Amino acid sequence: MISVSDALARLQKHSSLRVSAEQCDLKQSTGRVLASDIVAPLNVPPADNSAMDGYALRRGDWSDTNHTLPLSQRITAGTPPKPLEEGTAARIFTGAEIPQGADVVVMQENCSAGENNVKINQIGPLGSNIRPKGQDIRSGDTVLQAGQRLRPQDIGLIASLGFATIDVMQRLKVALVSTGSELVKPGRSIRPGQIYNSNHYMLDSLLRVWGFEVVDFGITEDSPAALKKVMASASESADVIITTGGVSVGEEDHVKAVVEELGQLDLWRVAIKPGKPFAFGRVGDAAFLGLPGNPVSAWVTLLVLGRDFLFDCQGSRGHSIVPIKQKALFEQNACGREVYIRVKYTDVGVEPFPQQSSGALSSTVWGNALAVQKPDVDIKQGELVDVIPYSQFY
Amino acid sequence: MISVSDALARLQKHSSLRVSAEQCDLKQSTGRVLASDIVAPLNVPPADNSAMDGYALRRGDWSDTNHTLPLSQRITAGTPPKPLEEGTAARIFTGAEIPQGADVVVMQENCSAGENNVKINQIGPLGSNIRPKGQDIRSGDTVLQAGQRLRPQDIGLIASLGFATIDVMQRLKVALVSTGSELVKPGRSIRPGQIYNSNHYMLDSLLRVWGFEVVDFGITEDSPAALKKVMASASESADVIITTGGVSVGEEDHVKAVVEELGQLDLWRVAIKPGKPFAFGRVGDAAFLGLPGNPVSAWVTLLVLGRDFLFDCQGSRGHSIVPIKQKALFEQNACGREVYIRVKYTDVGVEPFPQQSSGALSSTVWGNALAVQKPDVDIKQGELVDVIPYSQFY
Repeated sequence: MISVSDALARLQKHSSLRVSAEQCDLKQSTGRVLASDIVAPLNVPPADNSAMDGYALRRGDWSDTNHTLPLSQRITAGTPPKPLEEGTAARIFTGAEIPQGADVVVMQENCSAGENNVKINQIGPLGSNIRPKGQDIRSGDTVLQAGQRLRPQDIGLIASLGFATIDVMQRLKVALVSTGSELVKPGRSIRPGQIYNSNHYMLDSLLRVWGFEVVDFGITEDSPAALKKVMASASESADVIITTGGVSVGEEDHVKAVVEELGQLDLWRVAIKPGKPFAFGRVGDAAFLGLPGNPVSAWVTLLVLGRDFLFDCQGSRGHSIVPIKQKALFEQNACGREVYIRVKYTDVGVEPFPQQSSGALSSTVWGNALAVQKPDVDIKQGELVDVIPYSQFY
Repeated sequence: MISVSDALARLQKHSSLRVSAEQCDLKQSTGRVLASDIVAPLNVPPADNSAMDGYALRRGDWSDTNHTLPLSQRITAGTPPKPLEEGTAARIFTGAEIPQGADVVVMQENCSAGENNVKINQIGPLGSNIRPKGQDIRSGDTVLQAGQRLRPQDIGLIASLGFATIDVMQRLKVALVSTGSELVKPGRSIRPGQIYNSNHYMLDSLLRVWGFEVVDFGITEDSPAALKKVMASASESADVIITTGGVSVGEEDHVKAVVEELGQLDLWRVAIKPGKPFAFGRVGDAAFLGLPGNPVSAWVTLLVLGRDFLFDCQGSRGHSIVPIKQKALFEQNACGREVYIRVKYTDVGVEPFPQQSSGALSSTVWGNALAVQKPDVDIKQGELVDVIPYSQFY
């Protein structure tokens, strides 16, 4: 058996960018991966502007004996100001550009407005209430780097620079192949011996949350001929092929032989629970990930082993997970494998779902996180344990 | 000023479900909100099945003196088995249904297969390697409740029950109105005094991540007539209207008057930083949220104050946030308002972005979380501070 970190290192070694760049409307870019750096073509804000509704003036025109200045202009947001006449004040609004010559803004709460003048009752130091040009971003700054998977705030920042379209990576194409003659598509009726195909739906949803394009190759019966045909076709229409089931050592497990025939296969026994059998290789030019058939095993191996590999193929960077430490409200002895326990964490601590069978998909639904147990570390009641909230995986 | 928790309580008091149910293809349901409970129409698994590739037999047919049993059938996954003949074993594969009469499965690694028989070298207790019917889910169980916002694993669980379509809430319709004559749409050129409209793009992206339908009302100039026309139209085409800007007390802030004319307005000064001015009310029959115009203030108030309200209107339940505790690598004195500090957290601790101005959108992009400072609590170096990773908000 190889460790989880060894498996991740091997996967990373074999990962490579598998997509090209394309142009995308900024509004459609959430979750997409930047294909080139975003370099600011302008300052944000583009000019000194007012942080308050109030009055702009020269600090030197105000003195202990002269609090009242005539008003020489009115500057609303969006209108270019004239240079400020000496000895006068300008009415100004939040976001409006500071007129040339003014060096302080007094908030209106500290002023008494007359008909054509204003009495400044209290004044701050030079620069008060002025947001300087380039305070947020300076022209020429690299504000986001290629490889960034775009979040709402990134979209906002790019908009603030005036870009309406950007270069993103094409969506990684992932083919999903479910193997198992016992599997039936939801919506149909099942006969004895059959079960519904949950893996496809779960993985399809997860892959789409990750921003990939899923190519659905449905359910393939447990026959070498059928599987070979599907896998050959999948390798032509996708960057990565993911199978579920068929990677054990049994004589009904045909994935191994087909992948060896059409490409190259490494069959790993990873010290992970759930999920021991994990196959990796290529089919034609497509990368290949073979997940176990048990739903929870497929789920955990895709989150823990497959995610980084797929993001690497997509050209995404900085997608690493930072587990949090939470108090264990349970105990569990080490078992020699890295265990991903389906748990619920609250501010009180972490409790596991009682049924941790790899077939029990309800364990993933009940909680909100995976707790990680190292192969040789017992988890003790009240001690801190590493927890990865599901939201971090998405 | 009112506290953040008071503001949230007031918002919750005025929230109500604003959408009806509709049918949705399960494959399109990620992020949608369940409109009715999911009740299991069958057991999962539907029958006892094998957890291993191996041999099924009656435990009583194996004894210390008789290890070898004739093979009477071969059961692959997906094929219904015949009852097991007395004194025989059945070849069986992972996921295949246990034949009537068998009460144990021996993994093939513990057997020696002959041509028509099998020698069982080592056997476990009754029930070994058998996954009992209903182990994951029992027929009649409520497995997911109305109000659940569907994650990939929920989609998988629903598929395992055979549902191809489900009842979900219609997407909440949210109108976005940006106010400010200084605003220009990205992709166009700007003149002195103008800035690009980043708020719309950031909020549009966030609202869509949350699963809402955004109705874009673009940029409205700072004039009462223009604003009134847009707001009246928005109230007819959306469940909730969100504006940015125009909710201060300045004479160029027209949102207040227009909302009062077309509906009802509460203008709150919330003890939150960034984001003090926050308006709430209704325009016609639509709910109304008025966010500040500064990008970071709009961002923080929508995450902290608006999110729960919108999810309530969408019929989503259980969307509460669980902050995590992390070590502060900085210090900051209390300021009488609840401060949402843009930070980066790693396993070492939490550091703030140096520029915390409410105009500096780059502060939200740099990090991965908000740290929460209570109004009257100083943050001290090395002490634990509440942190909300951005991923929890999505």
